Amino acid sequence: MKMNRNAPIGVFDSGVGGLTVAREIMRQIPNERIVYFGDTARVPYGSKSKETVTRYSRQIVRFLRTQDVKAIVVACNTASAYALDEIEKEIDIPIIGVVKPGAKVASDATRNGKIGVIATEATIGSEIYSRYIKEINPKAEVLGKACPLFVPLVEEGLLHDPVTDEIAMRYLSGLIDSGIDTLILGCTHYPLIRSTVGKVVGEGVTLVNPAYETARELRELLEQEELLNETKPELGSNQYQFFVSDAAEKFIRFANSIIKYGILSAKVINIETY
Amino acid sequence: MKMNRNAPIGVFDSGVGGLTVAREIMRQIPNERIVYFGDTARVPYGSKSKETVTRYSRQIVRFLRTQDVKAIVVACNTASAYALDEIEKEIDIPIIGVVKPGAKVASDATRNGKIGVIATEATIGSEIYSRYIKEINPKAEVLGKACPLFVPLVEEGLLHDPVTDEIAMRYLSGLIDSGIDTLILGCTHYPLIRSTVGKVVGEGVTLVNPAYETARELRELLEQEELLNETKPELGSNQYQFFVSDAAEKFIRFANSIIKYGILSAKVINIETY
Repeated sequence: MKMNRNAPIGVFDSGVGGLTVAREIMRQIPNERIVYFGDTARVPYGSKSKETVTRYSRQIVRFLRTQDVKAIVVACNTASAYALDEIEKEIDIPIIGVVKPGAKVASDATRNGKIGVIATEATIGSEIYSRYIKEINPKAEVLGKACPLFVPLVEEGLLHDPVTDEIAMRYLSGLIDSGIDTLILGCTHYPLIRSTVGKVVGEGVTLVNPAYETARELRELLEQEELLNETKPELGSNQYQFFVSDAAEKFIRFANSIIKYGILSAKVINIETY
Repeated sequence: MKMNRNAPIGVFDSGVGGLTVAREIMRQIPNERIVYFGDTARVPYGSKSKETVTRYSRQIVRFLRTQDVKAIVVACNTASAYALDEIEKEIDIPIIGVVKPGAKVASDATRNGKIGVIATEATIGSEIYSRYIKEINPKAEVLGKACPLFVPLVEEGLLHDPVTDEIAMRYLSGLIDSGIDTLILGCTHYPLIRSTVGKVVGEGVTLVNPAYETARELRELLEQEELLNETKPELGSNQYQFFVSDAAEKFIRFANSIIKYGILSAKVINIETY
């Protein structure tokens, strides 16, 4: 089926974190329309199993298809790690995740071949960053560390706080000691505490935010498929639409702190019925 | 419908926290069989809406009915706050939550009438502890404080840790300043950091764990309804059964750290289909 260039891009995440990816898409491909879905009724994904995250991701893809999206971005590292391979085989529109782009940038950035990855338990346990990095550079050494408290600390707003510094030091000291020169922020919440992480690991370590490269690869992919929207949507045409599975008010508050675009509404849907 | 005395009690929670309530039931009514359900695929509930938590609770009650339970304990403060009133009207077996018992003990314990409640955002926002306490003592002053980082800190195992001390000091200083003499641990995870909370609030403040009183009221209720099991189930008869919606291995590990009874297995079910 040939999609319409003017159709929106579907972007999804377990909650609000994927907005850091949506923000990058808005910056780099400003003509595109976006339908964002945040699974706020079942957030977080990072502590759940592959089976469950895959089932949830399939439901979300089915919902996004009802919105006639021309492509899908899995803006969640855990869903990219657990569900993308399977879903890719099941659908006939382009779909990309955040892991492969992040792995590519890190492989390019490292000088000593030692790359650290910080992410949820699920993403680290899947070893997916390691797999993709080694496809590019088989000699690379990839060291993963799960940081389960980072998401709650970000959601509690402790972006610049001694407690977050202390937790970051505990999580990151092993990676620093092992001599990494590149660190992937492998969870979409982590760019929000980039300055804390940077302070702890020091200037010698390059921080990689997969969001930037994901938006760049999305742009390339849309060009190849002749799906890039060539004209800016008209004002008042709902260029960006937001759907959540729960608690729209809270989502809107958080979203407006991330995206400098006045997000006025988010529609609640029952994702379990898809 | 007259239930069977030998039927199990259904106990549910958003995840593992409710095991602190199950543990109290095992201690106080050792003849009872228990079917425990932890909604690990959708945990946590404390940041979600009333509508969503009520929908989830209804699904769980439907599942527990398939296990022929004679009574249900809502061993989750958020579900007790949001869903119990409605579900009570819909079913014909006894059902109790943890909020009313906790409110009763606190009302009895306070000397100066100033009671603090720490709990999830949802439980605090519902003001349900305040409502129940004022039914008993209309002059009581009830001060609530949401503590969203406590659950992730407990799940990360930081039960005795300077970071948990620091966070506890921030959350509790307002309650201490306002002169409370009684503090309700209004989330089933919090008894696991009872010593940290106790250290911060000082010996002058009585800590109330609703689990103890909930098990006591359950025993009374079963006696009244002539549903108390009079004989100890035989060895090997699966007195305690555990079901979860995801990640059984992780649940079993955590469960065995809470309950001194070798929990060997937990069955995963798809709760969305109930």
